[in-house]
Amino acid sequence: MRIDVLTLFPEMFEGVFDASILGKARQKGIVTLEAINFREYSESKHKTVDDYPYGGGGGMVLKPEPVFSAVEDLHAQSKTTPRVVLMCPQGETFTQRKAEELAEEEHLVLICGHYEGYDERIREHLVTDELSIGDYVLTGGEIPAMAVIDSIVRLLPGVLGNESSAVTDSYSTGLLEHPHYTRPPEFRGWSVPETLLSGHHENIKRWRREQSLLRTLSRRPDLLADAELTDKERKWLAEQSVTTNRY
Amino acid sequence: MRIDVLTLFPEMFEGVFDASILGKARQKGIVTLEAINFREYSESKHKTVDDYPYGGGGGMVLKPEPVFSAVEDLHAQSKTTPRVVLMCPQGETFTQRKAEELAEEEHLVLICGHYEGYDERIREHLVTDELSIGDYVLTGGEIPAMAVIDSIVRLLPGVLGNESSAVTDSYSTGLLEHPHYTRPPEFRGWSVPETLLSGHHENIKRWRREQSLLRTLSRRPDLLADAELTDKERKWLAEQSVTTNRY
Repeated sequence: MRIDVLTLFPEMFEGVFDASILGKARQKGIVTLEAINFREYSESKHKTVDDYPYGGGGGMVLKPEPVFSAVEDLHAQSKTTPRVVLMCPQGETFTQRKAEELAEEEHLVLICGHYEGYDERIREHLVTDELSIGDYVLTGGEIPAMAVIDSIVRLLPGVLGNESSAVTDSYSTGLLEHPHYTRPPEFRGWSVPETLLSGHHENIKRWRREQSLLRTLSRRPDLLADAELTDKERKWLAEQSVTTNRY
Repeated sequence: MRIDVLTLFPEMFEGVFDASILGKARQKGIVTLEAINFREYSESKHKTVDDYPYGGGGGMVLKPEPVFSAVEDLHAQSKTTPRVVLMCPQGETFTQRKAEELAEEEHLVLICGHYEGYDERIREHLVTDELSIGDYVLTGGEIPAMAVIDSIVRLLPGVLGNESSAVTDSYSTGLLEHPHYTRPPEFRGWSVPETLLSGHHENIKRWRREQSLLRTLSRRPDLLADAELTDKERKWLAEQSVTTNRY
């Protein structure tokens, strides 16, 4: 898979692309990641990429030409038609389902805005997708692009060492994860639940599933509608009181 | 304001803390940002920070001791009690309102997990807040921490050059932003809307508000419930057909 990021701040990506799972995925040759400064595509003398908004108002707007030229150059270099994703607050809210969908692509181009926004013609005539990572305001599209890339790359075959991890994480199962404990068995007087120390696999499995269900019920009941639950589990959940404990 | 990040990958933050608005806010002395490797707080010979989960299963779990020690050391250095935020998928979904709340603090400590998860005692006995930036799975808490930091720092007085920008952005008003246009007036046959070229300020203002309302109605109708709208605007919106145009 190849992912190109168009940005005015390629240096923001250096540490992120080299570290941890993304760094390993690159080393293994599973993904090619590149941060490209689209200022290089500006044809003006001073390499301008922004201009005043028509109609007045504060802030600067990204001009259409450099962004169009950069995407078209990447397209010309590619054997396939890249999917072109605009990172913007007005976009579709990014979800795990969208990550799974994008992980099937061969080539992605992510466009990161900055300043006040993009010229609307970029949105209307150049991009295939618009994504927002959540309902909060950020300085630019760079950190959202990192989030999208990280969530996609970890899904690619061969990236995660432990194949089971990608499946049991929160959101992958549609439920929040159960609590984890490791040594010491007692830390400052706080003990690990006895069930986990029992070695009784069936009880451990049931405890974890119950904790996962209760935590989802308590913190994110909206997720339960789409989660895969048995009839017995739905009945059991209906009997629980949310207020009896903190999960 | 001071923000400390506890992470096993401090190098991921270098490019992000130095660039753009965050870099300028640091230079101006408005915020102190530090990425601290909590592996330094491990007292084991090999600086171990993770261990096998009780009860079995894939992946490793972050041990309680190094994280407790790191937070307590930061607390000891601080005049005030820091707010301790755990970045995790089970946390409260981060929103602009939460960013505004956290921007009032003097000292924040953000804890970034990795591997399979945290020992539950960290969650129960050390942190004051748990935050998730959205419903997708990431490799660790580092990119979420960057998003939270960026959204908070841009709200601090003196950070954004143009004071009006922080107020009119998407989500800050409760509505998605109107389209922006800049030069050229015609690009590849696509023209800027005539209203924006008219110089008629009242019409421009009305056009932008209508576009903002229509785009929110079309893409994120869920936001309209909490948005500040006049009775006339609510009535006007009810008359619009979502399918007549693409916003």
